Amino acid sequence: MPAMQNSTRGAAIRTRIDPQRGAGFRLRRGQILKVIDPQGEQVSDLFAFRAGDPRCYLSSGRSLDYAGKLYLTTGDLLYANDSEVMFTILGDTVGRHDFTLTPCSQRMFEILYAHKGHHPSCHQNLCEALAGFGIQPHQIHTTFNIFMNVWFDPEGRMKVDVPRSKAGDSVELRAEMDMWCALTACSAEGSNNGTFKPIDFEIHDPPPAV
Amino acid sequence: MPAMQNSTRGAAIRTRIDPQRGAGFRLRRGQILKVIDPQGEQVSDLFAFRAGDPRCYLSSGRSLDYAGKLYLTTGDLLYANDSEVMFTILGDTVGRHDFTLTPCSQRMFEILYAHKGHHPSCHQNLCEALAGFGIQPHQIHTTFNIFMNVWFDPEGRMKVDVPRSKAGDSVELRAEMDMWCALTACSAEGSNNGTFKPIDFEIHDPPPAV
Repeated sequence: MPAMQNSTRGAAIRTRIDPQRGAGFRLRRGQILKVIDPQGEQVSDLFAFRAGDPRCYLSSGRSLDYAGKLYLTTGDLLYANDSEVMFTILGDTVGRHDFTLTPCSQRMFEILYAHKGHHPSCHQNLCEALAGFGIQPHQIHTTFNIFMNVWFDPEGRMKVDVPRSKAGDSVELRAEMDMWCALTACSAEGSNNGTFKPIDFEIHDPPPAV
Repeated sequence: MPAMQNSTRGAAIRTRIDPQRGAGFRLRRGQILKVIDPQGEQVSDLFAFRAGDPRCYLSSGRSLDYAGKLYLTTGDLLYANDSEVMFTILGDTVGRHDFTLTPCSQRMFEILYAHKGHHPSCHQNLCEALAGFGIQPHQIHTTFNIFMNVWFDPEGRMKVDVPRSKAGDSVELRAEMDMWCALTACSAEGSNNGTFKPIDFEIHDPPPAV
């Protein structure tokens, strides 16, 4: 079974990431990445590096600091560790995404859920998706967890609720530099209302200059 | 002027980090790092690597996920990116520290405060403190920002309030692996109630086995 299935829609190719799988791809500066939840209530973890320079990578800590808020949405910027802008959020039909947690991993399932045996995970899928770019597992940090519904009560206790995304909801991110990216259809039962669904994405070229 | 001044107190050496400076040091498994705010309302950023293996480093995303909360305190664990425990918080007289933001940096002062010219920063101080271990700037991620009083309102808007630490308040962290560490006396006006003060620390050997 392939990890991804393609279909065309308008000008851009729509790519499907099968449940509990991932995809790696290049983005050129100016291109727009549209991440779609085709069935609803499904998280997708995003990570990115500057193309050719993995010392520059997506940084939750910088992005939250510069935004001055926890929930990034339309108009907000995602920064790299060196404070360069990586993405501008151009559109967002949901408005609730997480940028505090690392991707789910084999060890996470063991530590939080006492899971025995192999469990598919976003971390493994991101590693496999980025291996072709020479990225090693330790280079993947806190991801932008699209559609993940994490919030904190006034005492700071974390709640992971069902994603607010309904079928067809999406986020559009403009690439502000050439990048190596990876995206998943999240593998964690607790983040996706108990089921595993696909994630779709499209890469749109920028409109021609006028 | 030296960056650090030493004085003895009981069994351990107390080291002073001057305002807007940093310090790098080794910790052996079992040793206890005590971080003290000698004058009050002063933040100290902590970062750490496994000694000899910088692919293993302090991870906010893992630590928050495993703790299930934003404010880590006595009894909580600080994890590495590979899900190994780095520190156990043995004591904490304050109870409010940040683990969401990257250390202040030259670019942060420019972006958030339109600062012109050089500004001392925790990121630069951590880089200098860790350079002797071969650590490069891009390897420093989100720090454990001891005494930093960051909170989020129900809409997720970030507030940076005056640290709750009073003169003499402290945090005690037990090293759960051999580590290379760095600690700062934070350089950001906005995080330290407008003044820059020193930070003290002590490294205590574990009690002898009985």
